[in-house]
Amino acid sequence: MDVLEKHSANPGRAGHRLSLEASRIMFEARDTVSDFIGSESVNHVVFTSGGTEGLNTAILGLLLPGDHVITTVAEHNSVYRPLGHCEKRGISHSIARAEADGFTSAEEIEKSLKPSTKAVVVNHISNLTGIVQPLPDIIELCREKGLFLIVDGSQSCGYYDYHVELMGIDFLVGTGHKSLYGPQGTGFLYLRDPELLSPLKYGGTGSESESMVQPSISPDKFESGTPNLPGIAGLAGGLAFIKKYGLEKMAIHKDELRVHFVEELKKIKGITLYGDREDHVYGPVVALNVGTVGSSEISFALDYDFGIMTRSGLHCAPMLHRHMGTLEQGAVRFSFGYHNTHEEVDEGLRALREIAKKY
Amino acid sequence: MDVLEKHSANPGRAGHRLSLEASRIMFEARDTVSDFIGSESVNHVVFTSGGTEGLNTAILGLLLPGDHVITTVAEHNSVYRPLGHCEKRGISHSIARAEADGFTSAEEIEKSLKPSTKAVVVNHISNLTGIVQPLPDIIELCREKGLFLIVDGSQSCGYYDYHVELMGIDFLVGTGHKSLYGPQGTGFLYLRDPELLSPLKYGGTGSESESMVQPSISPDKFESGTPNLPGIAGLAGGLAFIKKYGLEKMAIHKDELRVHFVEELKKIKGITLYGDREDHVYGPVVALNVGTVGSSEISFALDYDFGIMTRSGLHCAPMLHRHMGTLEQGAVRFSFGYHNTHEEVDEGLRALREIAKKY
Repeated sequence: MDVLEKHSANPGRAGHRLSLEASRIMFEARDTVSDFIGSESVNHVVFTSGGTEGLNTAILGLLLPGDHVITTVAEHNSVYRPLGHCEKRGISHSIARAEADGFTSAEEIEKSLKPSTKAVVVNHISNLTGIVQPLPDIIELCREKGLFLIVDGSQSCGYYDYHVELMGIDFLVGTGHKSLYGPQGTGFLYLRDPELLSPLKYGGTGSESESMVQPSISPDKFESGTPNLPGIAGLAGGLAFIKKYGLEKMAIHKDELRVHFVEELKKIKGITLYGDREDHVYGPVVALNVGTVGSSEISFALDYDFGIMTRSGLHCAPMLHRHMGTLEQGAVRFSFGYHNTHEEVDEGLRALREIAKKY
Repeated sequence: MDVLEKHSANPGRAGHRLSLEASRIMFEARDTVSDFIGSESVNHVVFTSGGTEGLNTAILGLLLPGDHVITTVAEHNSVYRPLGHCEKRGISHSIARAEADGFTSAEEIEKSLKPSTKAVVVNHISNLTGIVQPLPDIIELCREKGLFLIVDGSQSCGYYDYHVELMGIDFLVGTGHKSLYGPQGTGFLYLRDPELLSPLKYGGTGSESESMVQPSISPDKFESGTPNLPGIAGLAGGLAFIKKYGLEKMAIHKDELRVHFVEELKKIKGITLYGDREDHVYGPVVALNVGTVGSSEISFALDYDFGIMTRSGLHCAPMLHRHMGTLEQGAVRFSFGYHNTHEEVDEGLRALREIAKKY
């Protein structure tokens, strides 16, 4: 909001004071993201309009005709739909076998390996069941087999503490509006090696303006056009908020809420919980249903009668819904944020008890 | 700012009150843009992150291997660079001959016509010289020859009163942060026929979530991912501002400022003005140079000594700079907005007189 009111100039497009101020804000935001995920070079962080643009940039920019990709049943349509489009360009993909909650082991991914396999795309934490995929094992597999790893961190950035360089992640996609406390329409893509990718969009970058060829240096190569400066500053603001309170402390708080919620949910008759295996790890989202009632009806009751806002229906995750048998019913998703309290969770449980009794 | 504070929910992704509110804001914004440009269907307006994304969507989405495109010397790199990328896909382009200020007649465009020509891309108003291209003639040529017309309205939307359906424009690209008084990172693409284009990005749309195939209906087909709702609402706010004061009244005010500025500039010795032909029409930007001094030095003096902020250097318009012979020197650009006053223009003139004396 500060940027909207005081700094609405175009970074990198002029040399006057407001433009320089805008460039400084942009640089600091990039530095903040870079630091947050453990990137050694600030220029390996590219701002995007969200997780979808990040995934499209990585997937469409990396893959070439003849390539093969392995992914999981727990992906978002922002992975399946670009991969579907890639089929027309002669790029095939396999879906590794998963357990009921979407958990996919590195062994299962390895079973889909072909000589033409170039990359693995994995949603680190499912936006539906919250299942946390075994990232260290998958990274090891990718390193061993010489595969590129694209991590969809839309749900996990701001919850999981990434150190991309230390961990050896090739591409990490983040979105602003979930656990990063940024505004909608913001996100980033981390690229270990910017040379690997073709850009998604071409255009003015404020650099090499004399040339009609897209600059080859990052981030310019991937950031054509006037940037969403208010959004980018807001994203940096969200990260500053996380830094202030501590990512680990925030994650523990969300975990406590989730664990308490799930424990109590199990005692309520008529509630189906997706993802409650003791040997699996889950992020701070919980998907459930009440009997065979459509999830939208339950969500509506929660909102209308109790003032509790949840997402219902399908969650842009068609394969996992099919896997869970909820393609018709959908699922009600509760998500926990740092601002949520134990009292709110108890209120949610009270509401679900009443609703479960009624249906 | 109202959306950032009160309505940060995801439109079309859930059924709770905040999400429905967000959907309403999004629909109203789309309706506002649609009405503003004279589109009959609200669904033919697609929100983008700016002019660059709109042009990439139109150019990369429309053209197929073997196609030929005609464009002008007065385009932005957001046209040249996608077209350059298209060459790798077997899509060629020609640049129509232009006059000194970038003016390109329909006759010159026609001279570049080939049997494989599919489209014409034209920057309606140059962001450098302000030259207004003869759009009605170009539309007529396109209609006659069965060509698609892509209009880059980045500089003209908010100044020129578009009636896309009546005029017969196939694609109109607008950006929020110039004459539309919206925030940076916003824009739109009008599509006469959404079926003509492949999308630039694929992903979750909140619709047809059970399907791994991109929806074929507009705007969903072109709007994957969580939208930049604060930005979109801000763009609609900018259009409401224009509607309140009247586009024509605002354009006349800008014209008056420009005409006065240019008339007085001509009297200052040592100033080179780009685009001052009496038989040509210009939008509210003026490009100039002082002697042979680098444009950045003049811009710096204007800012530092007089508090006047201008853009210098190249303006992401390499071909027009080459055409004008300013590829080395660049140019100082003054742009006039509705908030500018005659007193400010006089102050600018005083500053330029002093600077011209010094150099």
